[in-house]
Amino acid sequence: MSSNGTATVALAPGHFLFTSESVGEGHPDKICDQVSDAILDACLAQDPFSKVGCETAAKTGMIMVFGEITTKGTIDYQKVIRDTIKRIGYDDSAKGFDYKTCNILVAIEQQSPDIAQGLDHGSLESIGAGDQGIMFGYATDETPEYMPLTLVLAHKLNSAMAAARRSGELGWLRPDSKTQVTVEYRKEGGATIPLRVDTVVVSTQHAAEISTEDLRKELMEKIIKKTIPANLLDERTVYHIQPSGRFVIGGPQGDAGLTGRKIIVDTYGGWGAHGGGAFSGKDWSKVDRSAAYTARWIAKSLVAGGLARRVLVQLSYAIGVAEPLSIYVDTYGTGKKTNEELVEVIRNNFDLRPGLIVQALGLQKPQYLKTASYGHFGNSEYAWEQPKKLQL
Amino acid sequence: MSSNGTATVALAPGHFLFTSESVGEGHPDKICDQVSDAILDACLAQDPFSKVGCETAAKTGMIMVFGEITTKGTIDYQKVIRDTIKRIGYDDSAKGFDYKTCNILVAIEQQSPDIAQGLDHGSLESIGAGDQGIMFGYATDETPEYMPLTLVLAHKLNSAMAAARRSGELGWLRPDSKTQVTVEYRKEGGATIPLRVDTVVVSTQHAAEISTEDLRKELMEKIIKKTIPANLLDERTVYHIQPSGRFVIGGPQGDAGLTGRKIIVDTYGGWGAHGGGAFSGKDWSKVDRSAAYTARWIAKSLVAGGLARRVLVQLSYAIGVAEPLSIYVDTYGTGKKTNEELVEVIRNNFDLRPGLIVQALGLQKPQYLKTASYGHFGNSEYAWEQPKKLQL
Ligand SMILES: C[S@@+](CC[C@H](N)C(=O)[O-])C[C@H]1O[C@@H](n2cnc3c(N)ncnc32)[C@H](O)[C@@H]1O
Ligand SMILES: C[S@@+](CC[C@H](N)C(=O)[O-])C[C@H]1O[C@@H](n2cnc3c(N)ncnc32)[C@H](O)[C@@H]1O
Repeated sequence: MSSNGTATVALAPGHFLFTSESVGEGHPDKICDQVSDAILDACLAQDPFSKVGCETAAKTGMIMVFGEITTKGTIDYQKVIRDTIKRIGYDDSAKGFDYKTCNILVAIEQQSPDIAQGLDHGSLESIGAGDQGIMFGYATDETPEYMPLTLVLAHKLNSAMAAARRSGELGWLRPDSKTQVTVEYRKEGGATIPLRVDTVVVSTQHAAEISTEDLRKELMEKIIKKTIPANLLDERTVYHIQPSGRFVIGGPQGDAGLTGRKIIVDTYGGWGAHGGGAFSGKDWSKVDRSAAYTARWIAKSLVAGGLARRVLVQLSYAIGVAEPLSIYVDTYGTGKKTNEELVEVIRNNFDLRPGLIVQALGLQKPQYLKTASYGHFGNSEYAWEQPKKLQL
Repeated sequence: MSSNGTATVALAPGHFLFTSESVGEGHPDKICDQVSDAILDACLAQDPFSKVGCETAAKTGMIMVFGEITTKGTIDYQKVIRDTIKRIGYDDSAKGFDYKTCNILVAIEQQSPDIAQGLDHGSLESIGAGDQGIMFGYATDETPEYMPLTLVLAHKLNSAMAAARRSGELGWLRPDSKTQVTVEYRKEGGATIPLRVDTVVVSTQHAAEISTEDLRKELMEKIIKKTIPANLLDERTVYHIQPSGRFVIGGPQGDAGLTGRKIIVDTYGGWGAHGGGAFSGKDWSKVDRSAAYTARWIAKSLVAGGLARRVLVQLSYAIGVAEPLSIYVDTYGTGKKTNEELVEVIRNNFDLRPGLIVQALGLQKPQYLKTASYGHFGNSEYAWEQPKKLQL
């Protein structure tokens, strides 16, 4: 049948292709993530104990925020939301969205009293998880940031486009963009060794004036070749630059947006695993966020500490219960200790109650708007990216 | 430090705990998934070539649908949405939501002309993928349905509660519920052998009248013990039944809902991997859905065909391009052939262009509302659950 046009060369033994994608700041789902986290930051700046579960929906000319917030702060939703859209770059209806004139709907209530009573057991140590759920953390030694190369490159392509748009170097760029990178890897035991970039996909919203031909040439020369190390590109690398041909209509006008709909872009690009919980708009009492950050902290600490080359960690919680219900580790066969022994290492080195995670990682500080673009992991500024020295 | 209260017994060598969760039909995110898929079905019933990207947001007393739909059909949004909410069981404001009186907002436009022109290359064979993206499929021989036991049990607990609510056996039950199941496994090579249920979490919305004590007793006797096989429960099994203590406020009143926010519940419960794309509200031209269904079909065909005991498959696409950009297989070391050989088996047995997937799996038929509860995989009624006989 051989339906497959692209990857026609059979793979060498032990080699495989893996693909990750990323999106830019003006992608409609990412707009929503940033609005939700800007509101979270505004709450935490005034009240570090704010309880925030803030969702955002976006469509042509409209931003709606809805959910549950209990805070001592006073939030100017109009200002926080319009400032966030302005920062992203939607400042003119010719671009499809204008922060000055869009309609803003607010349907925020207080946290359900039934939930609030179930979490508060008096002290920070005993505060229960804000929900049930499963959360994963992943780390790999294939890059200095202990992140998968496919995802690192996909993020960098989007941030390079945002930089060229803001500097004016490529003034025809618009905020909505998507990228995808396929890397050929070799397996070494359970570790993954990147060999070359097999395929690059870049799509971006653009001004109507530029021709598709010019756009493709500029993206190739000024974005792709400057972002992807030359030694990873070869004559077999395939490029799909602006494969749809035209992308003038973008942002919420081309596609509806919702908070929490880019959770694989936000985490490990399809590597490892995901528990399903979104991050943006959620304060630290929601283990979807705080325990996923902690699981990454654990995984990175294990790999940086030389205990494994590649690690996946799972935690699980029940609503109102502080202690996790289960801990799971898999080193893909790369561990210096067995998986069962590593569960004990985790138990002895990390206190996994939400009220203690928040202290260890400084999660009460407003810092979340930044995390809502280009991934929550891999950026060395974040507390959960500082490997902990483990007691063995 | 030993923060962990529950899992205090150290694990036997080669044993591990893994947890999956599920939610009931009245969970606010699941309400949104069902509304989005009911609208998709209504479009397909009238026009099998409908292009649908329909998102839903829910909060107290409100359902908003928004997105992009191009169809020859005429959709009565009010009726489709109210019928869906009624079917779920929110028929009285005493339950927190009433299909008869809720506010319905509709912000649906046509598919972006820039996208539409990029996909249509004349024939079904050449129609391009509706978006870029990565999609995974997973299968495991640990249950007859080739699905992870943790997730199968978590789904069954929710569907047992829905049945007892509808039959009147447990008339105090309300539609919003959540469950979570931790299983102790033993690794056998790369295969996973379930041994016992370690922890069960059940939370459900309930009528104000029933006491927490009675509720816990009834859930234990009439739901948990009747759903989980007795040989999997032992004296070490831990139960967290209604751990928050009170859950009268439920549905969209307790928590905002959005389409596509239960993508791990919808798929493999944290096993395997996820590409990030949601399913509900999307027609077959969106590879997020059609290629993920196909990846499951492939994975199940490989395991059912005896080529591996456990398989993960990844596909990737670019917008406007019909052929996938990459195919990845991992058998966790359980394969009868190498991963590279299995990529060739897939290439020779499956045509992965979206216009051919739709024919092979009958994805133009309205059938999606049903998939939006209790998982898109494992139900033997679905075409993508019929293993294909492979030519080797
Ligand atoms: C293809 S759209 C989703 C499809 C849409 N819901 C529909 O109705 O078909 C997904 C994302 O692709 C990007 N996109 C939008 N218009 C595009 C175009 N004309 N070409 C390429 N990518 C586009 C945007 O980032 C958008 O959020
Ligand atoms: C805990 S709520 C999410 C938290 C919320 N956004 C907040 O503001 O804290 C998540 C889910 O838990 C369930 N839930 C709602 N109220 C609950 C309660 N009182 N006890 C247990 N579970 C509850 C519902 O299924 C709901 O969708």
